[in-house]
Amino acid sequence: MSNDEHPIPSDEEVRTYFETCSNWGRWGEDDNAGTVNLITPEKRREAAALVRSGRAVSLARRLNTQGGPGNWSPAQHYLQVGAQFSADYLGMFFHGYATTHIDALCHIFWDGKMWNGKPASNVTSGGARSGAVDAWSSGIATRGVLIDIPRFRGTAHVTVDSPVRGWEMEAAAAQQGTPLRSGDAVVVYSGRESFYGSGSGHVPGVAPSPGLHADCIPVLREHDAAVLVWDQMDATPCGYETFAAPNPGLPIHVLAIAFMGLPLLDNALLQPLAEACIEEQRWEFMLTVNPLNVRGGTGSPVNPIAIF
Amino acid sequence: MSNDEHPIPSDEEVRTYFETCSNWGRWGEDDNAGTVNLITPEKRREAAALVRSGRAVSLARRLNTQGGPGNWSPAQHYLQVGAQFSADYLGMFFHGYATTHIDALCHIFWDGKMWNGKPASNVTSGGARSGAVDAWSSGIATRGVLIDIPRFRGTAHVTVDSPVRGWEMEAAAAQQGTPLRSGDAVVVYSGRESFYGSGSGHVPGVAPSPGLHADCIPVLREHDAAVLVWDQMDATPCGYETFAAPNPGLPIHVLAIAFMGLPLLDNALLQPLAEACIEEQRWEFMLTVNPLNVRGGTGSPVNPIAIF
Amino acid sequence: MSNDEHPIPSDEEVRTYFETCSNWGRWGEDDNAGTVNLITPEKRREAAALVRSGRAVSLARRLNTQGGPGNWSPAQHYLQVGAQFSADYLGMFFHGYATTHIDALCHIFWDGKMWNGKPASNVTSGGARSGAVDAWSSGIATRGVLIDIPRFRGTAHVTVDSPVRGWEMEAAAAQQGTPLRSGDAVVVYSGRESFYGSGSGHVPGVAPSPGLHADCIPVLREHDAAVLVWDQMDATPCGYETFAAPNPGLPIHVLAIAFMGLPLLDNALLQPLAEACIEEQRWEFMLTVNPLNVRGGTGSPVNPIAIF
Amino acid sequence: MSNDEHPIPSDEEVRTYFETCSNWGRWGEDDNAGTVNLITPEKRREAAALVRSGRAVSLARRLNTQGGPGNWSPAQHYLQVGAQFSADYLGMFFHGYATTHIDALCHIFWDGKMWNGKPASNVTSGGARSGAVDAWSSGIATRGVLIDIPRFRGTAHVTVDSPVRGWEMEAAAAQQGTPLRSGDAVVVYSGRESFYGSGSGHVPGVAPSPGLHADCIPVLREHDAAVLVWDQMDATPCGYETFAAPNPGLPIHVLAIAFMGLPLLDNALLQPLAEACIEEQRWEFMLTVNPLNVRGGTGSPVNPIAIF
Repeated sequence: MSNDEHPIPSDEEVRTYFETCSNWGRWGEDDNAGTVNLITPEKRREAAALVRSGRAVSLARRLNTQGGPGNWSPAQHYLQVGAQFSADYLGMFFHGYATTHIDALCHIFWDGKMWNGKPASNVTSGGARSGAVDAWSSGIATRGVLIDIPRFRGTAHVTVDSPVRGWEMEAAAAQQGTPLRSGDAVVVYSGRESFYGSGSGHVPGVAPSPGLHADCIPVLREHDAAVLVWDQMDATPCGYETFAAPNPGLPIHVLAIAFMGLPLLDNALLQPLAEACIEEQRWEFMLTVNPLNVRGGTGSPVNPIAIF
Repeated sequence: MSNDEHPIPSDEEVRTYFETCSNWGRWGEDDNAGTVNLITPEKRREAAALVRSGRAVSLARRLNTQGGPGNWSPAQHYLQVGAQFSADYLGMFFHGYATTHIDALCHIFWDGKMWNGKPASNVTSGGARSGAVDAWSSGIATRGVLIDIPRFRGTAHVTVDSPVRGWEMEAAAAQQGTPLRSGDAVVVYSGRESFYGSGSGHVPGVAPSPGLHADCIPVLREHDAAVLVWDQMDATPCGYETFAAPNPGLPIHVLAIAFMGLPLLDNALLQPLAEACIEEQRWEFMLTVNPLNVRGGTGSPVNPIAIF
Repeated sequence: MSNDEHPIPSDEEVRTYFETCSNWGRWGEDDNAGTVNLITPEKRREAAALVRSGRAVSLARRLNTQGGPGNWSPAQHYLQVGAQFSADYLGMFFHGYATTHIDALCHIFWDGKMWNGKPASNVTSGGARSGAVDAWSSGIATRGVLIDIPRFRGTAHVTVDSPVRGWEMEAAAAQQGTPLRSGDAVVVYSGRESFYGSGSGHVPGVAPSPGLHADCIPVLREHDAAVLVWDQMDATPCGYETFAAPNPGLPIHVLAIAFMGLPLLDNALLQPLAEACIEEQRWEFMLTVNPLNVRGGTGSPVNPIAIF
Repeated sequence: MSNDEHPIPSDEEVRTYFETCSNWGRWGEDDNAGTVNLITPEKRREAAALVRSGRAVSLARRLNTQGGPGNWSPAQHYLQVGAQFSADYLGMFFHGYATTHIDALCHIFWDGKMWNGKPASNVTSGGARSGAVDAWSSGIATRGVLIDIPRFRGTAHVTVDSPVRGWEMEAAAAQQGTPLRSGDAVVVYSGRESFYGSGSGHVPGVAPSPGLHADCIPVLREHDAAVLVWDQMDATPCGYETFAAPNPGLPIHVLAIAFMGLPLLDNALLQPLAEACIEEQRWEFMLTVNPLNVRGGTGSPVNPIAIF
């Protein structure tokens, strides 16, 4: 299959996603949890039933305290060491391209609005009055499905020239024997370690970047994904006028967070998970993401754990 | 049953715990994970099998940015709000009595040594070279057992006069139909909200405090607990000369962390969990604790999630 | 002299200060420096000419990293110690009652406006577009006059019952032989150390507090003070309806900062300065305040230095 | 004059500086202030007497919150904006190449020792027990002499190939009519803005860097400088075996701080000062540096102010 069979949608088509993929109002006008609502008690049971070998794999990068390309807001980590104890201080501006974190639904605005049609002015320096991360304080435990794009493509990593397409997510999931189901955490592996380790000189967060094409959105919407976990993010530049400056240029960030209410779990470490899937010969598992309980927060650093 | 039947151990007896309850060397001389080693793949399967209703309950307090009695090092939480996004900064000195967090095995020293007999000098301002929190970066997913002491006693909360005793933990667990098993997360509820809400003027972290008696240690050791989750901590003053100044005065902190290698999960919010247990009519569940991956860290803020 | 001779102004009278004491527009409609404009090159020469003995005295408290009453946002101070160097991290939420700091003119709003009539909306999470501390990045070097109220009164400290009055500032300055002049840094000593050390149980920042009466404002305005340096702040409660809730209740903060454009230098340590003045037998000196250059900042921690 | 007339000292010669330039013990074995002791009351009077035009110039760069090459640990600056006030949080790891700051005498160790022969172990995660910045809490007010090297050389900036030499400092100072005197703040301008603006691709803090040659040390010692203020730092690589890895490679940092007890004021902004000197036609002024009062701190961010 190719771009011929799966033509790149036009700007006009992508623009329809704002309506066709929107979940505004679906869980009530005051909802802050978005697609995490799809993780019902039954879905948690489904997730737990996937635990068979008991193997646990972390999807978190190490907190990075060293500033450098791709990490220009390094974390603060300082220790106190006394005669009878040690203790430490952690400081994090966790959004960006270095820290594994989940985006709350208040993280992205579009045209002055945020998730569920609320005004962006709901977010002030004192915190967000809607769409904050504490909507998920009971945790996210669901079926996770790794979609291993490099394996599907027979390459080491997704390249700038060839973003991950929506049809490809479906095809890879099907080939793995794990078609997507409502409430899943969809985990898309693009081979980040291989890409940045390939000596190409690319830097996380600096365009051009490999990643997901805007047309993944309708696929995520159709299958009612609850969370999108990824190692690379939006493919940039996205090529759509609609998302040109001054807009952030990230169609998936905008459409998923602000319109679908779908949380993004950025900068996941997926290479170990991809290897584990191959060893376990299955691409589904129980995934737990336990965001910190921060009132009005725009997200949280997390350590997502897959259990096979 | 009473203190008559269960006499308070002498200072001499408590002193024997340093040897009888030690796990030094048990998992190799370079082990940093301690009793979390008891959470085997099989134990994770046991935990997942406990998920029946699918109800999820958080054991985390809200991150508290307001300084005050009991919260001497309030968290930093600041937001950036732009035209198209919001983002926030989190800063935490999470040890203490306000933030729900897990203690790494490098957090406590005794006589210049830490977990597994390593020298306290392994911990420097650059991080811990042993016993750090990243030993648990694959997460902690195990069977959790709530031991509801107020319910066992028929009172609203544990009082200063009557610490939680080891025999009582066992008796309560048995009465609930959930005897302790190897690798469990033992979750001891002491009714913290009721105690501090009772107008008594007590302040978290300022002695005297209700909490667990030192003789809970051999019980935790005998049943091979993997984690101790609690809302109150060591009962203070502990009454033992061995733990008098200049020692930290916290027998359970010292013995659990430095000698048993048993992580403590401090300041858990257990009232909602206790209520859920009653409603579910069972006191066991799957518990997931996903500490942040901080190299050399002395612990991590966490949001532990129980799933019934 | 007494309150009989110097009656307490009515709420109506105090309300006139908003107009009679305003400096809006005085230095142009885009001015951000306020009364610091009064510190002309000539004024700096006047200040330098006051240096005779060469004695230097700091007016700064130690940065306080310990949370507690009066300091509920303690500073962060952590060290890195390597084999060949040490370095430290400082974090400060410096407003409040613990840290010696200067307030920028964007720190206080009144009725949606700030200094020079600018809208409060000029201040966003990204910084202040007007009235920011960087207006003073060339430093504040001027004549300082210590007004030693306890000495004038023959008491150890100002009490809650008897705020510092405007007439009293003038009378004390005259008695000391240092009448106020345009561009001065007016340094009002109220005996903070004695007051809080007196065992009264008062806490900085918790009403009632001793401090300056609202009628100091016209005196500061009449003499064209450039800076107000104080150890205690507004006397609280101020007793004026105009400043009742939801207003911040601090007439001097509001009138000085938002209307006069007069920076307040809060939490100065003045006891050593008062002692030095007595030893030097003069109550005027060169004062230097060198705020950090923080674009859009609401103030700065400072270490003001008096040179005799 | 050239390197022929002023031969580069050998490694052996430079090694003698450790003894010949040392001030250990000069102000008592427990001294922490180092050469700041040379700023006597009389010296402050000399400084104040230099104030003639009253012009004030800041030597501080703006606090830089944007990470990037040369600013690997950007500052944290966040605002709270309420209905009636704004307030901000500042966090700084100020050492490095971005923030204008003063180095305390505990900042550099050599062979396990620090200033005055004290053991490096005096510095712990709890702060420095000797050589800390609070030794200078009464401020630094002295005669400042700008040595304008680009002007002396007739070039725009000092280059990597041609570090600032000791003889050159003296020659430039003499030519300007401002020979150095005991207790001076020696301010060496190397044209940093021009150098990094020249499109050469150099990055502050990454060798090679233009700056001062090790043989400036005996000149600073001979004239009893009290402070060294500079925009560029040690020329790197320094070319001396003695300072090769694992040593920090910075002869002036090591010799000035650890042996002379001479504070370094790093990353000063000197272009505006150089321009002011030309306009004022004098290269001496009163300089005030008011470090924050941080107990046990390794330095402080500062805003040094020159007054002509």
